[in-house]
Amino acid sequence: MSRILTVGVAQLGPIARNESRSEVVTRLISLLTQAHRKGCTFVVFPELALTTFFPRWFIEDQNELSKFYETEMPNEDTKPLFDKAAELGIGFYLGYAEMTQDDESSVQRFNTSILVDNKGQIVGKYRKIHLPGHQENEPWRPFQHLEKRYFERGDLGFGTWDFMGGKVGMALCNDRRWPETYRVMALQGAEMIVLGYNTPMHYPPVPQHDHLQGFHNHVVMQSAAYQNGCWVIACAKAGNEEGCDLLGQSCIIAPTGEIVALASTVDDELIVAECDFERTKEIKENIFNFDLHRSPEEYEIISRPIEQGSEPSQ
Amino acid sequence: MSRILTVGVAQLGPIARNESRSEVVTRLISLLTQAHRKGCTFVVFPELALTTFFPRWFIEDQNELSKFYETEMPNEDTKPLFDKAAELGIGFYLGYAEMTQDDESSVQRFNTSILVDNKGQIVGKYRKIHLPGHQENEPWRPFQHLEKRYFERGDLGFGTWDFMGGKVGMALCNDRRWPETYRVMALQGAEMIVLGYNTPMHYPPVPQHDHLQGFHNHVVMQSAAYQNGCWVIACAKAGNEEGCDLLGQSCIIAPTGEIVALASTVDDELIVAECDFERTKEIKENIFNFDLHRSPEEYEIISRPIEQGSEPSQ
Repeated sequence: MSRILTVGVAQLGPIARNESRSEVVTRLISLLTQAHRKGCTFVVFPELALTTFFPRWFIEDQNELSKFYETEMPNEDTKPLFDKAAELGIGFYLGYAEMTQDDESSVQRFNTSILVDNKGQIVGKYRKIHLPGHQENEPWRPFQHLEKRYFERGDLGFGTWDFMGGKVGMALCNDRRWPETYRVMALQGAEMIVLGYNTPMHYPPVPQHDHLQGFHNHVVMQSAAYQNGCWVIACAKAGNEEGCDLLGQSCIIAPTGEIVALASTVDDELIVAECDFERTKEIKENIFNFDLHRSPEEYEIISRPIEQGSEPSQ
Repeated sequence: MSRILTVGVAQLGPIARNESRSEVVTRLISLLTQAHRKGCTFVVFPELALTTFFPRWFIEDQNELSKFYETEMPNEDTKPLFDKAAELGIGFYLGYAEMTQDDESSVQRFNTSILVDNKGQIVGKYRKIHLPGHQENEPWRPFQHLEKRYFERGDLGFGTWDFMGGKVGMALCNDRRWPETYRVMALQGAEMIVLGYNTPMHYPPVPQHDHLQGFHNHVVMQSAAYQNGCWVIACAKAGNEEGCDLLGQSCIIAPTGEIVALASTVDDELIVAECDFERTKEIKENIFNFDLHRSPEEYEIISRPIEQGSEPSQ
């Protein structure tokens, strides 16, 4: 079995607030079809790929808010994507807002991604752990970032899956900034880490860093690819979405940290690279051979629980 | 008290195998004097700054080998450096090979760095934890990298010190490639992480990565500066040393991850930047506010001991 996977990153341009699921799925299917023509057997879509990035608004009406979540997957609107992917023999990664309900009293909401095999079966699920932003409405901001309000912290940990010839892990957006994200998966054998993101160009608390968004996006992923000997596959929702500019620069990063494919628009755009899982060994068996060179007994503070009642610095 | 520290990085060109300690110290003092003229009150020297990088040779004669180690600090050869620094009111970081001996049976050898205050007093010591390379002579290599043979793993952990208005931590060379290094110190409040390195341009196990040495050097430190909201101060021993080319590119990196000063030679060279400890807050109180955004309960595997008897992959 070949260990080379031809991966397509299906960056999305903006999704309007009033755009229907089926309109978005039509765009996803169009990118999937392009990817098939280019020989891809795995396609990566962004975080919250079925709707606009709704945490930018403080939405008090729970009925209005709940429209942004999926209660089952696939569902009527997304089934055509699953069917088309299975028809083409393509696996995919998809991010969406998930709402679960076991009974009346326990509604839970997550920022979720799934891994779907080339027969249209969901084989892995991840729920976002590093939720950025804030919990309460902050009217001073030009737009909100209410992920801590609209989602529970993910309860599934960072997993890895045997998938299409390699060991694949998932993350979402802000997770990619944290070195722990990649390390936890690499220690479980991850050879490829797949993630989607929605990243505003403007960061209201520290606007003097706005010009560094592109640099920060790449530097954290390139170092992580190298430090863990993993392919990193990163797909943006990009462009001016409802007045908010989102970073593009979706990319495919080799285990050396080199960017081998890079999006050059902020629209719907497909980029492709052949990812050889065997290349992870160049790193994993040498400079970052974990068994030979790590010193976990020195790292205890990293997994030490945060003290209850500790005062956040802001 | 001002929280701006003017830092000089005193990159060194090659040190010959037959160069005496006092010759090297003369070079260090010359750089220290330059730094004083440029307003520095803290100067960073490289790893193993008093000798050639001797782990490149398999040395069987223990008398020959022991000449590369210091048994006390300061000693007769290095006292002029301590005296000059105190006279100029400059603190410094210095790397050297350390040999300790409590009694006949317990000689220990470490790859060590010290932090010296502006009165010439040693206020901090670090012993290198992430020792790279190998333990046995490997004649197929064009040069050896015998740090695992010539040094014990450091036994002092990663510390931080209140130093010249900020909280400062130390690392050495290969430590800088591991995200855990920076995180362990940042969780203890580090605002500046200081390190020296000796990095061959040629990496015999994977020579097809040689052209990436400069990129890898910078990408790991830039991401770490940003992810921890720390200044990173990195000083190379550079140039062609005994036939082995060593990377230069010493640099000063802001807490945003931006390189604000960069060496442009592979010789003795001083670079300078004003480092404002207050700028760490732009990161530490926002995007990487650890109390608000970390999830240590998900990171347990990072500090889990490596299983006894686990087979290294090479």
